[in-house]
Amino acid sequence: MDINSFIHDLTSIVGSQGIITSPKDTEIYNTDWRQIFQGNSIAVLRPQNTQEVSDVVKLCVQYDVTIIPQGGNTSLVGGATPLKQGNQIVLSLSRMNKIRNIDTIDSTMTVEAGVILEEAQNAAKNAGLYLPIVIASQGSAQIGGVIATNAGGNNTLRYGNAREFVLGLEVVTADGQILHNLRRLRKDNTGYALKQIFIGSEGTLGIITAAVLHLHPFPHSTEVALCAVPDLQHALRLLHLFNNYNPAALQAFEYISQKGMDLVCQHFPELNFPLETKAPVYIVVELAIPAQGDGLRELFETVLEKAFEEEIILDAVLAESETQRLNLWRFREEQSESQKLSGANIKNDVSVPISSIPEFIERATQACEAIYPGIQVAPFGHLGDGNIHFNLVQPANGDSKDFMNKSHDLMDAVCAVVYDLEGSFSAEHGIGQLKNYMMPSWRGGVELELMEKIKQSLDPKNILNPGKIFPN
Amino acid sequence: MDINSFIHDLTSIVGSQGIITSPKDTEIYNTDWRQIFQGNSIAVLRPQNTQEVSDVVKLCVQYDVTIIPQGGNTSLVGGATPLKQGNQIVLSLSRMNKIRNIDTIDSTMTVEAGVILEEAQNAAKNAGLYLPIVIASQGSAQIGGVIATNAGGNNTLRYGNAREFVLGLEVVTADGQILHNLRRLRKDNTGYALKQIFIGSEGTLGIITAAVLHLHPFPHSTEVALCAVPDLQHALRLLHLFNNYNPAALQAFEYISQKGMDLVCQHFPELNFPLETKAPVYIVVELAIPAQGDGLRELFETVLEKAFEEEIILDAVLAESETQRLNLWRFREEQSESQKLSGANIKNDVSVPISSIPEFIERATQACEAIYPGIQVAPFGHLGDGNIHFNLVQPANGDSKDFMNKSHDLMDAVCAVVYDLEGSFSAEHGIGQLKNYMMPSWRGGVELELMEKIKQSLDPKNILNPGKIFPN
Repeated sequence: MDINSFIHDLTSIVGSQGIITSPKDTEIYNTDWRQIFQGNSIAVLRPQNTQEVSDVVKLCVQYDVTIIPQGGNTSLVGGATPLKQGNQIVLSLSRMNKIRNIDTIDSTMTVEAGVILEEAQNAAKNAGLYLPIVIASQGSAQIGGVIATNAGGNNTLRYGNAREFVLGLEVVTADGQILHNLRRLRKDNTGYALKQIFIGSEGTLGIITAAVLHLHPFPHSTEVALCAVPDLQHALRLLHLFNNYNPAALQAFEYISQKGMDLVCQHFPELNFPLETKAPVYIVVELAIPAQGDGLRELFETVLEKAFEEEIILDAVLAESETQRLNLWRFREEQSESQKLSGANIKNDVSVPISSIPEFIERATQACEAIYPGIQVAPFGHLGDGNIHFNLVQPANGDSKDFMNKSHDLMDAVCAVVYDLEGSFSAEHGIGQLKNYMMPSWRGGVELELMEKIKQSLDPKNILNPGKIFPN
Repeated sequence: MDINSFIHDLTSIVGSQGIITSPKDTEIYNTDWRQIFQGNSIAVLRPQNTQEVSDVVKLCVQYDVTIIPQGGNTSLVGGATPLKQGNQIVLSLSRMNKIRNIDTIDSTMTVEAGVILEEAQNAAKNAGLYLPIVIASQGSAQIGGVIATNAGGNNTLRYGNAREFVLGLEVVTADGQILHNLRRLRKDNTGYALKQIFIGSEGTLGIITAAVLHLHPFPHSTEVALCAVPDLQHALRLLHLFNNYNPAALQAFEYISQKGMDLVCQHFPELNFPLETKAPVYIVVELAIPAQGDGLRELFETVLEKAFEEEIILDAVLAESETQRLNLWRFREEQSESQKLSGANIKNDVSVPISSIPEFIERATQACEAIYPGIQVAPFGHLGDGNIHFNLVQPANGDSKDFMNKSHDLMDAVCAVVYDLEGSFSAEHGIGQLKNYMMPSWRGGVELELMEKIKQSLDPKNILNPGKIFPN
């Protein structure tokens, strides 16, 4: 291949503002943000519109160069990072960042792939609407990546994953055609639901360039409580109690382990632990409805009272102000940071059936403690939808390197319990290049065979994001 | 092909109880329930379990016989009826009718494809849970068909289509393999979401044999009102008002036209029209929450009061009892029947963006009246999700045959408006063999090309439900 002529042709499509070739400037695109993966690319393309994306894809097909679609580069599994070998370009959607339309009657928003999630949330809010995908990376993550990875987050319990918000998609296919499927319809049973195939496919089947999102009414009343609970069985009873009043008011039901709470209190003493009782399990409960008024607070108090009566909770604090609400949330939000401040740590993003969570936490904790005595097991996460971040922290004052040497054994031990409980080894982070080696043992046989057939049919030359999802 | 040896081999798989060959007994399977389509089949197979389905498929591949999967045979588009040519079998899932499991903590139900929707609803209710797919055919429709067609219904507004309920699927593929994907997980981002490809594919990509459904808490409080509204713009404002109190309480928001109401009152005088005012638009509003008590009624009264103040509604009646609730619903439910009793009629199951509904109804009504003076335009349906059944009834005392001769012109006129408003020509009924001729003009180009690629990759021999979805 004549690289110069390739670069020349690319530049004639996107203009000199739309291409980056100097290694100094491409490095940030070639590295994932956790700096686990370092790849190479001929160039980083930053097209301005869908037609340019289409033309770039067609050119890459012609030159036999593979394409790594990239949004905010916030993947936790190296899903948007190029491979080591260099015959590839990064296609960044970041300049396609227009909000094309917001319709308050349809409750829809048409956005380009490069719009940052938080900007989309703010634009929705300004229109009295709510885009309820709440993830830690929302200040950088872009809509295209959010959809391509079917992102989850705190509010999945109530609103579903990213998939549930997508009414329509505009996609550039592996041969550079443009699928114009930006319909704003809630119901449309006309043949195969193509958008569903692209959502969550991590850029391996097509490049998402725009989407129509279904928004919700903005929740003007929000109430948050932190509850101390004797164990996870009681936490599930608490979930049941809230569900049986008005499940739709329940916006988040987040679990913090005793160890996780201790680490936050240690590293963020300014948060002032607000409960009188220490407990094995804490739950952050958030209720929200669009209507203003006292109705929601009354509902919350009613359910908490019942929970006290039935001895489901040991203690609880209901936020009295916006400041206190944000403060209560920080006990959950600083889980990752406090673990990072406590030394080397290992992340497991897994899910099991909700009813199996107590058994999962117990067995996985025992397994990890057996492998590495002194280990700090600090699980937390989305109890309401079965997705636990089963994180492990090195022993206090222990040796980081020695701990990390055991990381594969520890992850395998956690996964063995997940497997046994018919769970998932990647609940919301996806596969990328971090977990593709696990696909044959977890999704082998007919499942992987069908996935390969679909990949083969939509991207027969394996042009789009090679080395991701599928085992090498 | 040696038919006798084929029948012999089939019988050795399913036993003599599992196969029907006499024309007298197969006729009901070869005909759709509206009796528009009459097909032929070598035999009707009624396997008892997934392994038998798999073995039947493998045998059909070997003999080069195509397979028409069939559930309750309630398709409105001939989706489960064999074609005229005879080299096919009907595969009825009706004997696979076990509810394998209900889990009240996970809020899930694992059911076989042949379970009748209403039986699944009742089983959920007995466990304190709710399966909120509410469709007219629920007494006959089977879960497999409900999923294969991504059925909608009155509650889509709040809970989504069938797709939203499916956590896991068991599917027999076109080569007879069994995809065991009955996981009970709310979050699972491990490769392509295969279940999404089978949902809504009308049996053309695989045969659904079982599913895990996500259930909701049973709504113990339900309130229903019938509202008289000056026009559709005001109806949209009413929808907005309910959404901005607590959208999650809003379970149905159904439209009845003035003409539709008149026909029901004429044919069902015992229903006693309960409002003082006649109006151009009626809305049936249903709110529901799990909690018992007066909270919901208060919410309803608050919103209706506000709607009166803002002159959004002209009149309203809130049901005072279960009997009255069912009675109010009948004004909506008897729309089809009263139209049938009024003579020849034409059904259009379309959707447009919600904001475009007023324009759609106005333009489509004018177009139909121009084509056929005296026509009774009686649209009704799911205003809250944009899905209108734009039904047309012959003029009173007119000639049925003459009217039906114009049916294609009338349907084309309605569809032209839908197309112009970027809507769908089949919102919830699917394509089957009734609307597949429309696919090229509505979903042609890249969309149909991608659908064909997927069909080709998963069913290269076109064994499964040929002649459906795709144009002949």
